[in-house]
Amino acid sequence: MRHFIEELEELQARLLEMGTLVESAIHHAVLSLVERREEMARQVLRNEDRINHLEVEIDELSVRLLALQQPMARDLRFITAAIKINTDLERMGDLAVNIVERASALIQRPRIKPLIDIPQMAHTVECMVRKSLDAFVKREPDLARAVLLSDDTVDRLKDSIHNELVSFMQKDPSVIPQAIDLILVARHLERIADHATNIAEDTLFLVKGVDVRHHLEPDI
Amino acid sequence: MRHFIEELEELQARLLEMGTLVESAIHHAVLSLVERREEMARQVLRNEDRINHLEVEIDELSVRLLALQQPMARDLRFITAAIKINTDLERMGDLAVNIVERASALIQRPRIKPLIDIPQMAHTVECMVRKSLDAFVKREPDLARAVLLSDDTVDRLKDSIHNELVSFMQKDPSVIPQAIDLILVARHLERIADHATNIAEDTLFLVKGVDVRHHLEPDI
Repeated sequence: MRHFIEELEELQARLLEMGTLVESAIHHAVLSLVERREEMARQVLRNEDRINHLEVEIDELSVRLLALQQPMARDLRFITAAIKINTDLERMGDLAVNIVERASALIQRPRIKPLIDIPQMAHTVECMVRKSLDAFVKREPDLARAVLLSDDTVDRLKDSIHNELVSFMQKDPSVIPQAIDLILVARHLERIADHATNIAEDTLFLVKGVDVRHHLEPDI
Repeated sequence: MRHFIEELEELQARLLEMGTLVESAIHHAVLSLVERREEMARQVLRNEDRINHLEVEIDELSVRLLALQQPMARDLRFITAAIKINTDLERMGDLAVNIVERASALIQRPRIKPLIDIPQMAHTVECMVRKSLDAFVKREPDLARAVLLSDDTVDRLKDSIHNELVSFMQKDPSVIPQAIDLILVARHLERIADHATNIAEDTLFLVKGVDVRHHLEPDI
């Protein structure tokens, strides 16, 4: 049993490590875009390897835990949630790479506007990632609920970025390629927020036994 | 043991059912766009409920299977793969809804071009979804490999759609809103293909024990 608890703690530690890497990837992907730093963009790509390796390690660890002994119902749910969350984290890492790809294209072209909303959106999204994982490992429903609320903020920011860029393009068609790349960056950030929301929903299900995935209850 | 095998078969049947619904959602989402049929778009939204319910049922069934008895290593890997694949399928359903949202906006505006590449891309993506699930339940590595190959075709189609639409916008800025919506539809289809690719990779790992997720081996 001691062995089992240690491995469960190891699983949590690995998930948190992966979360920290993903948060850093998002942060540096957006920073490389805002400050037009190509070397920083390349560094995000190099760091993705570690995230991908962690995904495999966490999967292995989860399967080993399930095989080790018959886990209790509660532990079983925790481990199956960890398998899902692992996938969410890896996808977030992919999305950070997608942002870097847009950043690399944007750095080659003239800047069309100062970037204010996108860094703000990125900051909100990074907080969501951290909070969602904290909520999961500490089993804190309040933190998970805070993540669900932030998702609306992110959606609003994405829409406002989208609309502003469309009017930029309409005024000056020469900026179309850059504007589309920025729209896509905002979309990638929104998808990262969606993954953090998934983690928060899985956490609420784990802690409260309430499945909020497809019908958000007013009282949770 | 009989009970276990029956439940395992039930799990496969549910995943296939979900796959069929997702495939139909993609098909009708794109058809509603091509043929400008609002009622069809609304039907896709109504059908999403069933996909979401299936996701919850499959999760429950997986956890029950893990709890029933200590599954063998092979079954354990199958069930943990099913948990991941379930998530992929549900995300594909969400992406079909995203396509419908773009279709509903596009139907309100003048058509800017005949749609040829997008239906072709959708057809390839639907095949990928079906093949990836078939590969999983039949444990057929050849089918899984075919899915990985199609992913490149989809990426190329997406790039060509993107470039064509950018030049459309540059020639006539009045079509910018429609062109952006079509670019996003192509992106949503590409992401669905990514999820099918995930399923194919999980299948190869299950069948061959080769993890192809982050370093595609030349000989598999």
